[in-house]
Amino acid sequence: MSFDVEKIRADFPILGRQVNGRPLVYLDNGASAQKPRQVIEAITRAYSDEYANVHRGLHFLSNLATENYERVRSIIARFLHAPHEDEVIFTSGATEGINLVSYGWAAPRLQAGDEIIVSVLEHHANIVPWHFLRERQGVVLKWVEPEADGSLPPEKVLAAVGPKTKLVAVTHMSNVTGTVVDVAAIARGTDVPVLVDGSQASVHMPVDVASLGVDFYCITGHKLYGPSGSGAIWISRARQAEMRPFMGGGDMIRTVTRDSVDYADPPLRFEAGTPGIVNQIGLGAALEYLMDLGMGNIAAHEKVLRDYARERLRSLNWLNVQGDAADKGAIFSMTMEGAHAHDISTILDKRGIAVRAGSHCAMPLMEFYGVNATARASFAMYNTRAEVDALVDGLSFCRELFA
Amino acid sequence: MSFDVEKIRADFPILGRQVNGRPLVYLDNGASAQKPRQVIEAITRAYSDEYANVHRGLHFLSNLATENYERVRSIIARFLHAPHEDEVIFTSGATEGINLVSYGWAAPRLQAGDEIIVSVLEHHANIVPWHFLRERQGVVLKWVEPEADGSLPPEKVLAAVGPKTKLVAVTHMSNVTGTVVDVAAIARGTDVPVLVDGSQASVHMPVDVASLGVDFYCITGHKLYGPSGSGAIWISRARQAEMRPFMGGGDMIRTVTRDSVDYADPPLRFEAGTPGIVNQIGLGAALEYLMDLGMGNIAAHEKVLRDYARERLRSLNWLNVQGDAADKGAIFSMTMEGAHAHDISTILDKRGIAVRAGSHCAMPLMEFYGVNATARASFAMYNTRAEVDALVDGLSFCRELFA
Repeated sequence: MSFDVEKIRADFPILGRQVNGRPLVYLDNGASAQKPRQVIEAITRAYSDEYANVHRGLHFLSNLATENYERVRSIIARFLHAPHEDEVIFTSGATEGINLVSYGWAAPRLQAGDEIIVSVLEHHANIVPWHFLRERQGVVLKWVEPEADGSLPPEKVLAAVGPKTKLVAVTHMSNVTGTVVDVAAIARGTDVPVLVDGSQASVHMPVDVASLGVDFYCITGHKLYGPSGSGAIWISRARQAEMRPFMGGGDMIRTVTRDSVDYADPPLRFEAGTPGIVNQIGLGAALEYLMDLGMGNIAAHEKVLRDYARERLRSLNWLNVQGDAADKGAIFSMTMEGAHAHDISTILDKRGIAVRAGSHCAMPLMEFYGVNATARASFAMYNTRAEVDALVDGLSFCRELFA
Repeated sequence: MSFDVEKIRADFPILGRQVNGRPLVYLDNGASAQKPRQVIEAITRAYSDEYANVHRGLHFLSNLATENYERVRSIIARFLHAPHEDEVIFTSGATEGINLVSYGWAAPRLQAGDEIIVSVLEHHANIVPWHFLRERQGVVLKWVEPEADGSLPPEKVLAAVGPKTKLVAVTHMSNVTGTVVDVAAIARGTDVPVLVDGSQASVHMPVDVASLGVDFYCITGHKLYGPSGSGAIWISRARQAEMRPFMGGGDMIRTVTRDSVDYADPPLRFEAGTPGIVNQIGLGAALEYLMDLGMGNIAAHEKVLRDYARERLRSLNWLNVQGDAADKGAIFSMTMEGAHAHDISTILDKRGIAVRAGSHCAMPLMEFYGVNATARASFAMYNTRAEVDALVDGLSFCRELFA
């Protein structure tokens, strides 16, 4: 099937709107993606006609909602090429997924002096949960720096592994530079469990957790064109067996008495309380949309965008782009002499162009690049070459204003 | 304003549907409530026209989404009569709220031998997080039984308070018996912090956390006619000041370096990662809907339903109703000699009547009543006297089949 970007755009209601009198050019996909009508309609249908609480009912609507909801587990398993469906644990997003691993797997296992390897590329979601372990139980964070171009050679990560290393926590794609990390090579090179933050990578390229050989892989629905508060983490059965529950409540127990709790089998053991039923149903619709298009086709389209954007941005000799690895994703963090990142964002916004300015929840990486903030244009499957042109024109206008 | 139940019903698309060829009689509101079109439309609008990630952007859509999202904090503060808006912490539901208190407030403060008072009425969401502290750090759970009619006299709870008591964790309304607990009297009677599970009570009666005098009060959006994955917990400033962060990630920090984290001020300190943006926007629409009707009016309507249902169910001398406190909510748990609760639910379902069968995430209470499961009819603001009649007819039909 050919990749028809205009047909895709027509599925996204918000892409038809204007901002400040100009057609919206949405280049803030790294923060969150827009939603196709297929997702919005799935949500509406679920609430309007097929809603009840799941798992614990026997009546028609409860059974129907349970079917619709649990079916998403198999959709996610298919999306991630998970060997077993019960390795998919629903979460409210990547942050909850990584905290689940920090609280459920790492906290009860790691001792003072044990090390977690973290890359300087990481998003705060893959940093702060490990800082908790440092603060609370003396775990040591061992940092690995990227190269100047933003790339992170696997051998550099592997060189940091020592006898005290208990976990490698690394992103699959940087939300700042677009760096793609060869997590398979890292996993091949060590027996230490590897946690991968797939928040960005899963949106932009095919992911096969089995062939990656990692232990934990989290995704977040709102970046995957899905609803707020949706997401999942894939955890291998071997690692699941080592975990204790994270949140306590309904659905994650077999029996509760005054003196004891017997926990349910995974994945329910790690899913306390009424889950994000309709959010996950919406995520299922989003992932089916992506798989219908084909993640390979999406990656190919975005590669063309990346190459075009890279070429055009390179021609702006007054613009600094942080991170320029050859195989990076279509994410561009930029600074400009004389203009603050916030100014750039504000001026582009006047032209209907949405980019994000700030530290992008990646302060250690900002420090590495010696900047406080960047303006970031992050592309998605519905973006076009014309939108690259609009960005470049907008940046040039900034340059004129501030030079 | 008069309370027009037919007008309200017309706002709920699902209430117009048929189940098994009969008009839906939805009496599973204790598990989750249906959603009015005002909520569904708010969600659709948010995704179709006003969506971006919040807080960290400067562009138009991000500012708009942030405004829409943060406005909900003030709506919740108004709904709960919270003295300060920053005492409202967004959660994915009551389960996350109570786990936040367990991990953020109790775990770092309580020592082995310290006691938490829990009532036998509690939902597992208000039990299992405390069992974690028993399992992991030797905290003692001290149980208070209700009376046979399901009521829980405050003096009985207060009598259990001793020098080792560090927390009282109690529901405001039982999800099984409808028992309303006088949490204000409990809070008045002790200096020990009081956590209230308001999952049910907040749906059925006005709540004023300031005059209740409690410390923690959690609500869950999906029972409040709001979206999946929405909710909040109100925590007094005094208790917030004693808490450490629960989940780590973006948005809850001020600065992150390789060696340190400086946390944001509350409430953001307790809200890690991209939040459930559109879920909370939908919850705001739900709470505005409720406040427009008036929680007092809703309570009055449900009182009439409760009295009518109580009277009619009492006339069935082969039916056992667990819990019959005078001022209970319109929630009826029932068993019948010779028919399993699951059979009752299945037979009612054939007539389009949705009730829940099981232990209702309240196994200690099931044990107290000496039953494994009950069939539960739980009413909401959109239910009618005719639906009480349908329930009674359905139960009579069960009796005929199984007697």
